[in-house]
Amino acid sequence: MNVDSIQKIVFIGAGNLATHLSQALFRAGLPIAQVYSRTESSARSLAERLNARCTCSIDEIDRDADLYFLALSDKALVPVLEQLKPTRGIFLHTAGSLPMKVLQPFSKLYGVFYPLQTFSKKREVDFSRIPVCVEACNEELKALLLDLGRRISDKVSEVSSEQRGQLHLAAVFTCNFTNHMYSIGQELLQDQNLDFEMLQPLIMETAAKVQTMEPRNAQTGPAIRFDEQIIKKQEAALKQYPIFQKLYRFVSESIHKMHSKN
Amino acid sequence: MNVDSIQKIVFIGAGNLATHLSQALFRAGLPIAQVYSRTESSARSLAERLNARCTCSIDEIDRDADLYFLALSDKALVPVLEQLKPTRGIFLHTAGSLPMKVLQPFSKLYGVFYPLQTFSKKREVDFSRIPVCVEACNEELKALLLDLGRRISDKVSEVSSEQRGQLHLAAVFTCNFTNHMYSIGQELLQDQNLDFEMLQPLIMETAAKVQTMEPRNAQTGPAIRFDEQIIKKQEAALKQYPIFQKLYRFVSESIHKMHSKN
Repeated sequence: MNVDSIQKIVFIGAGNLATHLSQALFRAGLPIAQVYSRTESSARSLAERLNARCTCSIDEIDRDADLYFLALSDKALVPVLEQLKPTRGIFLHTAGSLPMKVLQPFSKLYGVFYPLQTFSKKREVDFSRIPVCVEACNEELKALLLDLGRRISDKVSEVSSEQRGQLHLAAVFTCNFTNHMYSIGQELLQDQNLDFEMLQPLIMETAAKVQTMEPRNAQTGPAIRFDEQIIKKQEAALKQYPIFQKLYRFVSESIHKMHSKN
Repeated sequence: MNVDSIQKIVFIGAGNLATHLSQALFRAGLPIAQVYSRTESSARSLAERLNARCTCSIDEIDRDADLYFLALSDKALVPVLEQLKPTRGIFLHTAGSLPMKVLQPFSKLYGVFYPLQTFSKKREVDFSRIPVCVEACNEELKALLLDLGRRISDKVSEVSSEQRGQLHLAAVFTCNFTNHMYSIGQELLQDQNLDFEMLQPLIMETAAKVQTMEPRNAQTGPAIRFDEQIIKKQEAALKQYPIFQKLYRFVSESIHKMHSKN
Protein backbone atom coordinates (compact mmCIF):
# COMPACT_ATOMS: atom_id res chain seq x y z
CA MET A 1 0.00 0.00 0.00
CA ASN A 2 1.18 3.52 -0.72
CA VAL A 3 -0.29 6.85 0.36
CA ASP A 4 -2.11 7.41 -2.94
CA SER A 5 -3.88 4.09 -2.67
CA ILE A 6 -5.46 5.01 0.70
CA GLN A 7 -9.17 5.20 -0.01
CA LYS A 8 -10.68 5.70 3.39
CA ILE A 9 -9.54 7.13 6.71
CA VAL A 10 -11.51 7.18 9.96
CA PHE A 11 -10.68 9.53 12.82
CA ILE A 12 -11.48 8.23 16.27
CA GLY A 13 -11.38 11.25 18.55
CA ALA A 14 -12.18 14.90 17.83
CA GLY A 15 -10.08 16.71 20.41
CA ASN A 16 -7.36 19.31 19.85
CA LEU A 17 -4.85 16.98 18.23
CA ALA A 18 -7.46 15.19 16.12
CA THR A 19 -8.83 18.53 14.92
CA HIS A 20 -5.49 19.84 13.69
CA LEU A 21 -4.12 16.57 12.36
CA SER A 22 -7.25 15.59 10.45
CA GLN A 23 -7.49 19.02 8.88
CA ALA A 24 -3.85 18.93 7.80
CA LEU A 25 -4.43 15.52 6.17
CA PHE A 26 -7.67 16.75 4.58
CA ARG A 27 -5.89 19.76 3.08
CA ALA A 28 -3.23 17.42 1.73
CA GLY A 29 -5.98 15.60 -0.15
CA LEU A 30 -6.37 12.52 2.03
CA PRO A 31 -9.82 10.93 2.13
CA ILE A 32 -11.25 11.22 5.64
CA ALA A 33 -14.64 9.55 5.56
CA GLN A 34 -15.78 9.55 9.16
CA VAL A 35 -15.17 11.08 12.57
CA TYR A 36 -16.06 9.41 15.83
CA SER A 37 -16.31 11.21 19.16
CA ARG A 38 -18.41 10.32 22.15
CA THR A 39 -19.34 14.02 22.25
CA GLU A 40 -21.77 14.54 19.42
CA SER A 41 -21.11 18.25 18.94
CA SER A 42 -17.35 17.67 18.65
CA ALA A 43 -17.82 14.87 16.15
CA ARG A 44 -20.22 16.92 14.07
CA SER A 45 -18.21 20.12 14.10
CA LEU A 46 -15.00 18.39 12.99
CA ALA A 47 -16.76 16.18 10.42
CA GLU A 48 -18.27 19.29 8.79
CA ARG A 49 -14.85 20.79 8.25
CA LEU A 50 -13.65 17.57 6.67
CA ASN A 51 -16.71 16.92 4.50
CA ALA A 52 -17.01 13.66 6.40
CA ARG A 53 -19.71 11.77 8.22
CA CYS A 54 -19.80 11.59 11.98
CA THR A 55 -20.95 9.28 14.69
CA CYS A 56 -20.90 9.13 18.45
CA SER A 57 -21.58 5.44 18.61
CA ILE A 58 -18.62 3.07 18.56
CA ASP A 59 -20.79 0.44 16.86
CA GLU A 60 -21.33 2.74 13.90
CA ILE A 61 -17.66 3.23 13.15
CA ASP A 62 -16.94 2.14 9.57
CA ARG A 63 -15.28 -1.26 9.40
CA ASP A 64 -13.86 -0.98 5.92
CA ALA A 65 -11.41 1.90 6.33
CA ASP A 66 -7.74 1.54 5.37
CA LEU A 67 -6.51 3.66 8.24
CA TYR A 68 -7.84 4.41 11.72
CA PHE A 69 -6.34 7.35 13.58
CA LEU A 70 -6.85 6.79 17.30
CA ALA A 71 -6.52 10.33 18.64
CA LEU A 72 -7.82 9.69 22.13
CA SER A 73 -6.58 10.41 25.61
CA ASP A 74 -4.26 7.77 27.09
CA LYS A 75 -7.05 6.62 29.39
CA ALA A 76 -9.71 6.35 26.69
CA LEU A 77 -7.63 4.49 24.10
CA VAL A 78 -7.77 0.89 25.29
CA PRO A 79 -11.44 0.93 26.40
CA VAL A 80 -12.47 2.23 22.97
CA LEU A 81 -10.29 -0.34 21.20
CA GLU A 82 -11.92 -3.10 23.22
CA GLN A 83 -15.32 -2.09 21.93
CA LEU A 84 -14.31 -1.72 18.27
CA LYS A 85 -15.50 -4.48 15.98
CA PRO A 86 -12.69 -6.20 14.08
CA THR A 87 -11.46 -4.58 10.88
CA ARG A 88 -8.55 -5.13 8.51
CA GLY A 89 -7.48 -1.51 8.71
CA ILE A 90 -4.23 -0.10 10.03
CA PHE A 91 -4.46 1.25 13.59
CA LEU A 92 -2.41 4.33 14.44
CA HIS A 93 -2.31 6.00 17.79
CA THR A 94 -1.11 9.56 18.26
CA ALA A 95 0.06 9.55 21.88
CA GLY A 96 3.50 10.48 23.12
CA SER A 97 3.51 8.43 26.26
CA LEU A 98 2.03 5.13 25.06
CA PRO A 99 4.22 2.42 23.54
CA MET A 100 3.23 1.12 20.12
CA LYS A 101 2.60 -2.35 21.57
CA VAL A 102 -0.67 -1.29 23.22
CA LEU A 103 -2.21 -1.68 19.76
CA GLN A 104 -0.92 -5.19 19.13
CA PRO A 105 -3.91 -7.10 20.57
CA PHE A 106 -6.29 -5.16 18.35
CA SER A 107 -4.87 -5.25 14.85
CA LYS A 108 -2.37 -7.01 12.61
CA LEU A 109 -1.11 -3.69 11.26
CA TYR A 110 -0.43 -0.95 13.72
CA GLY A 111 1.82 2.00 14.31
CA VAL A 112 2.20 5.44 15.83
CA PHE A 113 1.85 8.85 14.22
CA TYR A 114 2.81 11.42 16.86
CA PRO A 115 2.93 15.12 16.02
CA LEU A 116 4.93 16.93 18.70
CA GLN A 117 3.09 20.16 19.39
CA THR A 118 0.62 21.71 21.83
CA PHE A 119 -2.70 22.10 20.08
CA SER A 120 -5.66 24.34 20.92
CA LYS A 121 -8.77 24.26 18.79
CA LYS A 122 -8.80 28.04 18.53
CA ARG A 123 -5.23 28.50 17.33
CA GLU A 124 -4.05 27.85 13.81
CA VAL A 125 -0.73 26.04 13.53
CA ASP A 126 1.62 25.58 10.60
CA PHE A 127 1.70 21.81 10.39
CA SER A 128 4.60 21.78 7.94
CA ARG A 129 6.95 22.79 10.77
CA ILE A 130 5.69 20.30 13.35
CA PRO A 131 7.92 17.27 13.98
CA VAL A 132 6.01 14.09 13.20
CA CYS A 133 7.36 10.93 14.86
CA VAL A 134 6.38 7.64 13.31
CA GLU A 135 6.80 4.03 14.37
CA ALA A 136 5.40 0.94 12.67
CA CYS A 137 5.01 -2.77 13.24
CA ASN A 138 6.81 -3.58 9.99
CA GLU A 139 9.05 -2.02 7.34
CA GLU A 140 6.35 -1.60 4.72
CA LEU A 141 4.08 0.26 7.10
CA LYS A 142 7.01 2.37 8.25
CA ALA A 143 7.60 3.49 4.67
CA LEU A 144 3.92 4.32 4.30
CA LEU A 145 3.85 6.35 7.52
CA LEU A 146 7.00 8.27 6.63
CA ASP A 147 5.46 9.13 3.28
CA LEU A 148 2.13 10.06 4.85
CA GLY A 149 3.93 12.26 7.36
CA ARG A 150 5.79 14.05 4.56
CA ARG A 151 2.50 15.04 2.98
CA ILE A 152 1.82 17.35 5.91
CA SER A 153 5.17 18.05 7.56
CA ASP A 154 8.77 18.79 6.58
CA LYS A 155 10.05 17.14 9.75
CA VAL A 156 9.16 13.46 9.78
CA SER A 157 11.32 10.89 11.50
CA GLU A 158 11.24 7.37 12.85
CA VAL A 159 11.16 7.37 16.64
CA SER A 160 11.00 4.27 18.83
CA SER A 161 8.52 3.88 21.69
CA GLU A 162 11.31 4.40 24.19
CA GLN A 163 12.52 7.56 22.47
CA ARG A 164 8.96 8.84 22.14
CA GLY A 165 8.37 8.35 25.86
CA GLN A 166 11.42 10.46 26.62
CA LEU A 167 10.34 13.04 24.05
CA HIS A 168 6.98 13.25 25.75
CA LEU A 169 8.65 13.77 29.12
CA ALA A 170 10.81 16.49 27.60
CA ALA A 171 7.63 18.08 26.24
CA VAL A 172 6.07 18.06 29.71
CA PHE A 173 9.04 20.09 30.97
CA THR A 174 9.33 22.46 28.02
CA CYS A 175 5.62 23.04 27.49
CA ASN A 176 3.50 22.21 30.55
CA PHE A 177 6.06 23.19 33.17
CA THR A 178 7.18 26.24 31.23
CA ASN A 179 3.58 27.37 31.06
CA HIS A 180 3.41 26.97 34.83
CA MET A 181 6.40 29.30 35.14
CA TYR A 182 4.40 31.80 33.06
CA SER A 183 1.41 31.32 35.39
CA ILE A 184 3.56 32.03 38.43
CA GLY A 185 4.75 35.22 36.71
CA GLN A 186 1.15 36.15 36.08
CA GLU A 187 0.22 35.61 39.73
CA LEU A 188 3.19 37.59 41.03
CA LEU A 189 2.34 40.52 38.76
CA GLN A 190 -1.36 40.45 39.58
CA ASP A 191 -0.57 40.86 43.27
CA GLN A 192 1.29 44.09 42.49
CA ASN A 193 -1.36 45.34 40.06
CA LEU A 194 0.92 44.88 37.11
CA ASP A 195 -0.26 43.64 33.76
CA PHE A 196 0.91 40.25 32.49
CA GLU A 197 1.54 42.02 29.16
CA MET A 198 4.78 43.30 30.64
CA LEU A 199 6.22 39.78 30.59
CA GLN A 200 5.13 38.88 27.06
CA PRO A 201 8.18 40.21 25.16
CA LEU A 202 10.51 38.51 27.66
CA ILE A 203 8.68 35.21 27.23
CA MET A 204 8.88 35.42 23.43
CA GLU A 205 12.56 36.34 23.45
CA THR A 206 13.41 33.52 25.90
CA ALA A 207 11.77 31.04 23.51
CA ALA A 208 13.25 32.69 20.41
CA LYS A 209 16.78 32.46 21.82
CA VAL A 210 16.75 28.67 21.96
CA GLN A 211 15.72 28.45 18.32
CA THR A 212 19.33 29.30 17.49
CA MET A 213 21.23 28.69 20.76
CA GLU A 214 21.45 25.64 22.98
CA PRO A 215 19.41 26.30 26.13
CA ARG A 216 22.34 25.35 28.32
CA ASN A 217 24.34 28.19 26.75
CA ALA A 218 21.44 30.61 26.99
CA GLN A 219 21.04 30.26 30.77
CA THR A 220 21.28 33.56 32.67
CA GLY A 221 20.26 34.81 36.12
CA PRO A 222 21.51 34.53 39.69
CA ALA A 223 21.09 30.74 39.95
CA ILE A 224 23.78 29.89 37.42
CA ARG A 225 26.46 31.42 39.66
CA PHE A 226 24.48 30.32 42.73
CA ASP A 227 24.88 33.79 44.16
CA GLU A 228 23.63 32.88 47.66
CA GLN A 229 23.10 36.55 48.58
CA ILE A 230 20.65 37.28 45.74
CA ILE A 231 19.02 33.87 46.07
CA LYS A 232 18.34 34.41 49.78
CA LYS A 233 17.00 37.89 49.08
CA GLN A 234 14.67 36.65 46.35
CA GLU A 235 13.58 33.70 48.46
CA ALA A 236 12.72 36.08 51.28
CA ALA A 237 10.72 38.23 48.87
CA LEU A 238 8.59 35.16 48.13
CA LYS A 239 7.61 34.59 51.77
CA GLN A 240 3.92 35.13 50.99
CA TYR A 241 4.10 32.35 48.39
CA PRO A 242 5.37 29.24 50.18
CA ILE A 243 5.01 26.94 47.15
CA PHE A 244 6.73 29.34 44.78
CA GLN A 245 9.41 29.91 47.41
CA LYS A 246 10.18 26.20 47.62
CA LEU A 247 10.13 25.99 43.84
CA TYR A 248 12.46 28.97 43.61
CA ARG A 249 15.05 27.30 45.84
CA PHE A 250 14.67 23.98 44.14
CA VAL A 251 14.93 25.17 40.54
CA SER A 252 17.84 27.44 41.47
CA GLU A 253 19.68 24.43 42.90
CA SER A 254 18.90 22.37 39.84
CA ILE A 255 20.26 25.13 37.55
CA HIS A 256 23.38 25.36 39.66
CA LYS A 257 23.92 21.61 39.64
CA MET A 258 23.48 21.36 35.90
CA HIS A 259 26.01 24.14 35.31
CA SER A 260 28.60 23.03 37.81
CA LYS A 261 28.76 19.58 36.18
CA ASN A 262 30.61 20.97 33.17
CA MET B 1 15.00 69.83 31.97
CA ASN B 2 13.44 68.06 29.03
CA VAL B 3 14.80 65.30 26.80
CA ASP B 4 15.89 67.69 24.04
CA SER B 5 17.98 69.72 26.45
CA ILE B 6 20.08 66.69 27.46
CA GLN B 7 23.57 67.48 26.21
CA LYS B 8 25.64 64.69 27.55
CA ILE B 9 25.06 61.12 28.65
CA VAL B 10 27.61 58.77 30.20
CA PHE B 11 27.16 55.02 30.24
CA ILE B 12 28.72 53.23 33.19
CA GLY B 13 28.81 49.56 32.24
CA ALA B 14 29.12 47.92 28.84
CA GLY B 15 27.41 44.57 29.38
CA ASN B 16 24.42 43.12 27.54
CA LEU B 17 21.86 45.57 28.86
CA ALA B 18 24.16 48.59 28.46
CA THR B 19 24.96 47.57 24.89
CA HIS B 20 21.34 47.37 23.79
CA LEU B 21 20.02 50.31 25.77
CA SER B 22 22.80 52.71 24.79
CA GLN B 23 22.42 51.80 21.12
CA ALA B 24 18.67 52.34 21.24
CA LEU B 25 19.22 55.78 22.79
CA PHE B 26 21.96 56.56 20.28
CA ARG B 27 19.67 55.67 17.36
CA ALA B 28 17.01 57.93 18.87
CA GLY B 29 19.49 60.80 18.64
CA LEU B 30 20.57 61.04 22.26
CA PRO B 31 24.10 62.31 22.90
CA ILE B 32 26.15 59.57 24.51
CA ALA B 33 29.60 60.99 25.11
CA GLN B 34 31.41 58.33 27.07
CA VAL B 35 31.35 54.66 28.06
CA TYR B 36 33.03 53.29 31.16
CA SER B 37 33.75 49.61 31.71
CA ARG B 38 36.46 48.03 33.81
CA THR B 39 37.05 45.72 30.84
CA GLU B 40 38.84 47.83 28.25
CA SER B 41 37.78 45.82 25.22
CA SER B 42 34.09 46.03 26.22
CA ALA B 43 34.32 49.79 26.78
CA ARG B 44 36.06 50.36 23.47
CA SER B 45 33.83 48.13 21.41
CA LEU B 46 30.63 49.74 22.69
CA ALA B 47 32.03 53.29 22.50
CA GLU B 48 32.92 52.76 18.85
CA ARG B 49 29.35 51.91 17.99
CA LEU B 50 28.14 55.03 19.78
CA ASN B 51 30.76 57.42 18.40
CA ALA B 52 31.70 58.00 22.00
CA ARG B 53 34.89 58.06 24.05
CA CYS B 54 35.70 55.25 26.42
CA THR B 55 37.56 54.70 29.66
CA CYS B 56 38.25 51.87 32.03
CA SER B 57 39.27 54.15 34.85
CA ILE B 58 36.58 55.37 37.24
CA ASP B 59 38.61 58.55 37.82
CA GLU B 60 38.35 59.46 34.16
CA ILE B 61 34.57 59.37 34.02
CA ASP B 62 33.29 62.77 32.85
CA ARG B 63 31.94 64.87 35.70
CA ASP B 64 29.84 67.26 33.65
CA ALA B 65 27.27 64.87 32.11
CA ASP B 66 23.53 65.48 32.52
CA LEU B 67 22.71 61.83 32.84
CA TYR B 68 24.61 58.79 34.09
CA PHE B 69 23.25 55.36 33.24
CA LEU B 70 24.53 52.88 35.79
CA ALA B 71 24.15 49.60 33.94
CA LEU B 72 26.16 47.42 36.28
CA SER B 73 25.56 44.15 38.07
CA ASP B 74 23.82 44.44 41.45
CA LYS B 75 27.08 43.66 43.18
CA ALA B 76 29.19 46.17 41.28
CA LEU B 77 26.83 49.14 41.55
CA VAL B 78 27.51 50.51 45.02
CA PRO B 79 31.31 49.93 44.96
CA VAL B 80 31.52 51.90 41.69
CA LEU B 81 29.28 54.68 43.03
CA GLU B 82 31.51 55.00 46.09
CA GLN B 83 34.48 55.70 43.88
CA LEU B 84 32.75 58.20 41.57
CA LYS B 85 33.72 61.81 42.07
CA PRO B 86 30.75 64.09 42.83
CA THR B 87 28.77 65.41 39.87
CA ARG B 88 25.52 67.32 39.42
CA GLY B 89 24.19 64.79 36.96
CA ILE B 90 21.15 62.57 37.27
CA PHE B 91 21.95 59.01 38.32
CA LEU B 92 19.84 56.23 36.85
CA HIS B 93 20.24 52.57 37.57
CA THR B 94 18.85 49.85 35.33
CA ALA B 95 18.43 46.94 37.76
CA GLY B 96 15.21 45.06 38.43
CA SER B 97 16.00 43.91 41.91
CA LEU B 98 17.51 47.05 43.47
CA PRO B 99 15.33 49.70 45.08
CA MET B 100 15.73 53.26 43.81
CA LYS B 101 16.94 54.37 47.26
CA VAL B 102 20.34 52.76 46.82
CA LEU B 103 21.23 55.84 44.74
CA GLN B 104 20.16 58.40 47.33
CA PRO B 105 23.53 58.75 49.11
CA PHE B 106 25.25 59.51 45.82
CA SER B 107 23.19 62.13 44.04
CA LYS B 108 20.46 64.71 44.54
CA LEU B 109 18.68 63.56 41.40
CA TYR B 110 18.24 59.87 40.87
CA GLY B 111 15.90 57.36 39.37
CA VAL B 112 15.51 53.99 37.70
CA PHE B 113 15.25 53.13 34.02
CA TYR B 114 14.58 49.39 33.79
CA PRO B 115 14.00 47.69 30.44
CA LEU B 116 12.40 44.30 31.05
CA GLN B 117 14.05 41.91 28.61
CA THR B 118 16.79 39.31 28.41
CA PHE B 119 19.67 40.72 26.41
CA SER B 120 22.51 38.96 24.63
CA LYS B 121 25.13 40.97 22.82
CA LYS B 122 24.80 38.81 19.72
CA ARG B 123 21.03 39.11 19.31
CA GLU B 124 19.25 42.13 17.91
CA VAL B 125 16.11 43.16 19.79
CA ASP B 126 13.28 45.48 18.80
CA PHE B 127 13.51 48.00 21.64
CA SER B 128 10.20 49.64 20.73
CA ARG B 129 8.35 46.59 22.10
CA ILE B 130 10.32 46.27 25.35
CA PRO B 131 8.52 47.45 28.50
CA VAL B 132 10.52 50.23 30.13
CA CYS B 133 9.81 50.78 33.84
CA VAL B 134 10.75 54.16 35.28
CA GLU B 135 10.86 55.53 38.80
CA ALA B 136 12.16 58.92 39.89
CA CYS B 137 12.98 60.84 43.04
CA ASN B 138 10.67 63.69 42.05
CA GLU B 139 7.82 64.53 39.67
CA GLU B 140 9.92 66.57 37.27
CA LEU B 141 12.45 63.79 36.81
CA LYS B 142 9.62 61.30 36.43
CA ALA B 143 8.24 63.30 33.51
CA LEU B 144 11.69 63.43 31.95
CA LEU B 145 12.21 59.69 32.29
CA LEU B 146 8.78 58.85 30.89
CA ASP B 147 9.56 61.08 27.91
CA LEU B 148 13.04 59.61 27.49
CA GLY B 149 11.59 56.10 27.63
CA ARG B 150 9.05 56.95 24.92
CA ARG B 151 11.88 57.89 22.56
CA ILE B 152 12.91 54.25 22.41
CA SER B 153 9.89 52.20 23.51
CA ASP B 154 6.12 52.14 23.04
CA LYS B 155 5.63 50.60 26.47
CA VAL B 156 6.83 52.97 29.16
CA SER B 157 5.28 53.03 32.61
CA GLU B 158 5.93 54.19 36.13
CA VAL B 159 6.75 51.27 38.39
CA SER B 160 7.62 51.53 42.10
CA SER B 161 10.63 49.82 43.65
CA GLU B 162 8.35 47.27 45.29
CA GLN B 163 6.56 46.51 42.04
CA ARG B 164 9.85 46.30 40.16
CA GLY B 165 11.20 43.77 42.67
CA GLN B 166 8.16 41.59 42.07
CA LEU B 167 8.50 42.07 38.31
CA HIS B 168 12.09 40.94 38.54
CA LEU B 169 11.08 37.83 40.46
CA ALA B 170 8.41 37.11 37.85
CA ALA B 171 11.12 37.48 35.21
CA VAL B 172 13.31 34.94 37.02
CA PHE B 173 10.47 32.41 36.77
CA THR B 174 9.39 33.19 33.21
CA CYS B 175 12.87 33.59 31.73
CA ASN B 176 15.61 31.92 33.81
CA PHE B 177 13.52 29.05 35.14
CA THR B 178 11.77 28.54 31.81
CA ASN B 179 15.16 28.29 30.13
CA HIS B 180 16.07 25.64 32.68
CA MET B 181 13.00 23.65 31.63
CA TYR B 182 14.32 23.90 28.07
CA SER B 183 17.72 22.66 29.25
CA ILE B 184 16.13 19.67 30.96
CA GLY B 185 14.35 18.90 27.69
CA GLN B 186 17.66 19.13 25.88
CA GLU B 187 19.33 16.72 28.31
CA LEU B 188 16.47 14.20 28.14
CA LEU B 189 16.60 14.22 24.34
CA GLN B 190 20.37 13.96 24.18
CA ASP B 191 20.27 10.78 26.23
CA GLN B 192 18.00 9.19 23.62
CA ASN B 193 20.01 10.52 20.66
CA LEU B 194 17.24 12.90 19.69
CA ASP B 195 17.88 16.38 18.39
CA PHE B 196 16.82 19.38 20.50
CA GLU B 197 15.41 20.82 17.25
CA MET B 198 12.41 18.56 17.76
CA LEU B 199 11.32 20.66 20.73
CA GLN B 200 11.79 24.06 19.10
CA PRO B 201 8.34 24.41 17.50
CA LEU B 202 6.70 23.33 20.78
CA ILE B 203 8.70 25.90 22.71
CA MET B 204 7.76 28.70 20.30
CA GLU B 205 4.08 27.77 20.31
CA THR B 206 3.99 27.56 24.13
CA ALA B 207 5.36 31.11 24.29
CA ALA B 208 3.17 32.35 21.44
CA LYS B 209 0.01 31.06 23.14
CA VAL B 210 0.41 33.33 26.15
CA GLN B 211 0.75 36.39 23.92
CA THR B 212 -3.02 36.18 23.46
CA MET B 213 -4.20 33.85 26.27
CA GLU B 214 -3.71 33.99 30.02
CA PRO B 215 -1.17 31.32 31.00
CA ARG B 216 -3.53 29.96 33.63
CA ASN B 217 -6.04 29.21 30.87
CA ALA B 218 -3.38 27.78 28.57
CA GLN B 219 -2.24 25.11 31.04
CA THR B 220 -2.42 21.57 29.67
CA GLY B 221 -0.90 18.20 30.59
CA PRO B 222 -1.39 15.50 33.21
CA ALA B 223 -0.59 17.69 36.22
CA ILE B 224 -3.61 19.95 35.85
CA ARG B 225 -5.94 17.00 36.55
CA PHE B 226 -3.32 15.49 38.86
CA ASP B 227 -3.75 12.18 37.10
CA GLU B 228 -1.79 10.15 39.69
CA GLN B 229 -1.42 7.20 37.31
CA ILE B 230 0.36 9.16 34.56
CA ILE B 231 2.33 11.19 37.09
CA LYS B 232 3.63 8.03 38.77
CA LYS B 233 4.49 6.51 35.41
CA GLN B 234 6.36 9.62 34.26
CA GLU B 235 8.10 9.93 37.62
CA ALA B 236 9.26 6.33 37.31
CA ALA B 237 10.56 7.06 33.81
CA LEU B 238 12.78 9.74 35.36
CA LYS B 239 14.49 7.36 37.79
CA GLN B 240 17.91 7.98 36.19
CA TYR B 241 17.47 11.71 36.80
CA PRO B 242 16.85 12.13 40.54
CA ILE B 243 16.83 15.94 40.43
CA PHE B 244 14.49 16.13 37.45
CA GLN B 245 12.32 13.49 39.12
CA LYS B 246 11.95 15.56 42.27
CA LEU B 247 11.31 18.65 40.16
CA TYR B 248 8.72 16.74 38.15
CA ARG B 249 6.76 15.81 41.27
CA PHE B 250 7.11 19.24 42.75
CA VAL B 251 6.07 21.28 39.71
CA SER B 252 3.19 18.87 39.08
CA GLU B 253 1.94 19.48 42.61
CA SER B 254 2.31 23.21 42.21
CA ILE B 255 0.30 23.15 38.97
CA HIS B 256 -2.37 21.07 40.65
CA LYS B 257 -2.57 23.38 43.66
CA MET B 258 -2.83 26.47 41.49
CA HIS B 259 -5.66 24.96 39.49
CA SER B 260 -7.62 23.48 42.35
CA LYS B 261 -7.77 26.88 44.06
CA ASN B 262 -10.27 28.18 41.52
